[in-house]
Amino acid sequence: MIEEIISWLIAAKEKIILAQNEQLMIDEKSNRKDLVTNMDREIQAFLIEKIHSAYPQAKILAEEEGYSDLPDLSGQVFIIDPIDGTLNFVVQGENFCIMLAYYEDGIGQLGFIYDVMRDELYWGGKKIGVYKNDIKLPQPKDLPLEKGLVAINSYLFGHDRFNIHAIGEQSIGVRMCGCAGLELIAMLKGNHIGYISNLSPWDYAAGNVLLDVFGMKYSGFSGDPLTFHGREYYLAATPTAYETILEMLEFE
Amino acid sequence: MIEEIISWLIAAKEKIILAQNEQLMIDEKSNRKDLVTNMDREIQAFLIEKIHSAYPQAKILAEEEGYSDLPDLSGQVFIIDPIDGTLNFVVQGENFCIMLAYYEDGIGQLGFIYDVMRDELYWGGKKIGVYKNDIKLPQPKDLPLEKGLVAINSYLFGHDRFNIHAIGEQSIGVRMCGCAGLELIAMLKGNHIGYISNLSPWDYAAGNVLLDVFGMKYSGFSGDPLTFHGREYYLAATPTAYETILEMLEFE
Repeated sequence: MIEEIISWLIAAKEKIILAQNEQLMIDEKSNRKDLVTNMDREIQAFLIEKIHSAYPQAKILAEEEGYSDLPDLSGQVFIIDPIDGTLNFVVQGENFCIMLAYYEDGIGQLGFIYDVMRDELYWGGKKIGVYKNDIKLPQPKDLPLEKGLVAINSYLFGHDRFNIHAIGEQSIGVRMCGCAGLELIAMLKGNHIGYISNLSPWDYAAGNVLLDVFGMKYSGFSGDPLTFHGREYYLAATPTAYETILEMLEFE
Repeated sequence: MIEEIISWLIAAKEKIILAQNEQLMIDEKSNRKDLVTNMDREIQAFLIEKIHSAYPQAKILAEEEGYSDLPDLSGQVFIIDPIDGTLNFVVQGENFCIMLAYYEDGIGQLGFIYDVMRDELYWGGKKIGVYKNDIKLPQPKDLPLEKGLVAINSYLFGHDRFNIHAIGEQSIGVRMCGCAGLELIAMLKGNHIGYISNLSPWDYAAGNVLLDVFGMKYSGFSGDPLTFHGREYYLAATPTAYETILEMLEFE
């Protein structure tokens, strides 16, 4: 299954590279900062077609058009973000990624985060480890909040929701790049100790599988499990930083 | 002079790569988030030695140890940031750069921003253009604030100083990566329309030379020229976004 999925992702990447010479068709979703392009739709349709023909019984949860909710995660489920960081994709032409996760009965088995323009595929799962292309990543250190960089969603940080500003101050620095997949890659590399945001299931499904490999922690802001329904507050961090951040978050 | 400076920068890069297998010596400067390492000092000493032997009459303004102030910019002046983004260098081992600028009587002639780990050297000057390694960069579009991404210093954004929060909201998104040189590269590539921060001369000297080539604007927060003395508030943007941001900034 792994080689098969990787071949789909490489084909998806080639579609994106080819399309760079053509004009993107861009639509606004909920507001002027929430965009979808013809490439988001094409990549999603391409991946769904591949999954349907290889795994006809599998269910699909995906960002665009009619696939964005599932009543439950029973059985085989593929979770897709065809282009994570669509705004970066449109404006920068880089700093976006394709994400795909494979779950069985709600348990993450495989995760793939593909930084397309850098040609860096982060992938893995339990008993496999986490790889960057074909290089196995070492276990990141379990650094505390005050020794590491933390990525924070700009709305939450800018509005100082839930005491997040104090969390940023206690860290050694706040970063934001506008792409959940890249923020999760930064944790897998040990570059960041945490990520605090407001995400949909396809934003965190693949990353969580890879964080699991390293024993990193993630949850909603009350420490509650993620629901995989709609947008929800999301905290991921090293085990030590997770405890500190959860305690500092003023939520409910 | 250009080839000579590039050869120094490549040699400096090699020193950094070699040192990655050794333990860094890290000291705090003003606080726990303001670091200096033995590599900052070594790279600065190396570049100063090269400049002294090639241009013995030139003056030097540089971040570390005894070179951090000049009474004026008359004559030939080299301005050096040996490692810009030292915190990223220490914690991430990437997302930092070496910056070097050459000024004559206060006028920027050449600028070099070297993203060491990606091996991307952005360099150029008036009548030369701006290059990424040996590829000439196209003129970025003169996008307005509401059509572009803006990088904002995390302290200013987090504390909503000078109405900066509203500026971020009016843009299509706020980014922060912890390295002035990389934020300026993002402008040169057309990825970002502006950068708002609090910088020292070695943080902006090289970038300003390259922004000049594209007719981008920069100044202090009142529109006043930068002083090249100590830290000061810094705004750079496309001509159209610059006017909007300057008007929105509530300064003085």
